[in-house]
Amino acid sequence: MTDDDRHREKMAKRKAVQDAEVAEKTIEKGLLIVNTGPGKGKTTAALGLMLRALGRGWRVGIVQFIKGGWDTGEKHAIHAFGDRVDWHTLGEGFTWETQDKARDIAACEHAWAKTEALMADASIRLLVLDELNIALRYEYLDLDRVVAALKARRPDLHVVVTGRNAKPALIEAADLVTEMGNVKHHFSAGVKAQEGIEF
Amino acid sequence: MTDDDRHREKMAKRKAVQDAEVAEKTIEKGLLIVNTGPGKGKTTAALGLMLRALGRGWRVGIVQFIKGGWDTGEKHAIHAFGDRVDWHTLGEGFTWETQDKARDIAACEHAWAKTEALMADASIRLLVLDELNIALRYEYLDLDRVVAALKARRPDLHVVVTGRNAKPALIEAADLVTEMGNVKHHFSAGVKAQEGIEF
Repeated sequence: MTDDDRHREKMAKRKAVQDAEVAEKTIEKGLLIVNTGPGKGKTTAALGLMLRALGRGWRVGIVQFIKGGWDTGEKHAIHAFGDRVDWHTLGEGFTWETQDKARDIAACEHAWAKTEALMADASIRLLVLDELNIALRYEYLDLDRVVAALKARRPDLHVVVTGRNAKPALIEAADLVTEMGNVKHHFSAGVKAQEGIEF
Repeated sequence: MTDDDRHREKMAKRKAVQDAEVAEKTIEKGLLIVNTGPGKGKTTAALGLMLRALGRGWRVGIVQFIKGGWDTGEKHAIHAFGDRVDWHTLGEGFTWETQDKARDIAACEHAWAKTEALMADASIRLLVLDELNIALRYEYLDLDRVVAALKARRPDLHVVVTGRNAKPALIEAADLVTEMGNVKHHFSAGVKAQEGIEF
């Protein structure tokens, strides 16, 4: 038996295992997805999922709970998809920017009301709740109410929640949870936040 | 002092710290970014970064080293950006699909030649090398050659490399490395790969 033959045999076995694993998975459902952890890519992966969903002809929604009115590349880019993206930036910046807890809470309540409206809109198949974890961590929104609403979502609605320090009750309710870990960061090497990369 | 005042004072101090940290970061450069780890979101975050870059008016390139001819939402979506996306799916599927090592190596060499051409194209500001880590792990490409070429990139070119098991030499050369960790996965609960989410 040559090396090539051995490789082919090993890969044929591996394919059989893979095929069997795929065949076992039969459930289709709207997923509750959580992107958390201290590393990069939580919001960015949610944007990538929006791009994929848009490529399937879906309508998508996004509510930003913390990020305020600053200019981002992604908000320009989604104009290419017209009214298939329902985008709401309802935060007012980080808590250390506003320095006003009552105002932060009011902004989060407003964003949550918009979330409930988008969850009820049957034309939306994917909904991104950007930095909702931050609003929950600072207790600007009631955790039980939020988790109950997310659990009661339409069966075909996919929801992505982003932000560090996801609450255990949210992780418990989720179908898919990814922890973005920071192995190495250019900010530590003195590189600034750059247009096209960070925003 | 009221609770509100205490909150304001604490946040004002935090803002001063944040502002000082931001002011220290002055370097601008094309980043070498690596998205690795067993969790979801490696390729998806790269797609999100492409969307952000497209929103800034950039041209972007992507070379897929492993993924083959299958239909994905993202390939449909990027048509919205016309020739500002230079997309090359040059893989032929996973190694257990082709079962032919010589063919896998030839596909990776072809993808690497395309990568070198895109790295030399000054109109491209962001280049995604999807699943290059897999090609390196199976030694389908020479690690030293790849790392040397990535290090010698144009100063304004951002490169994103995705795939599990990033090689230590690549991590060493990178500016930003994120490890996507799998906390919870719907495949384990019998949910299948779904259009709009996984592809």
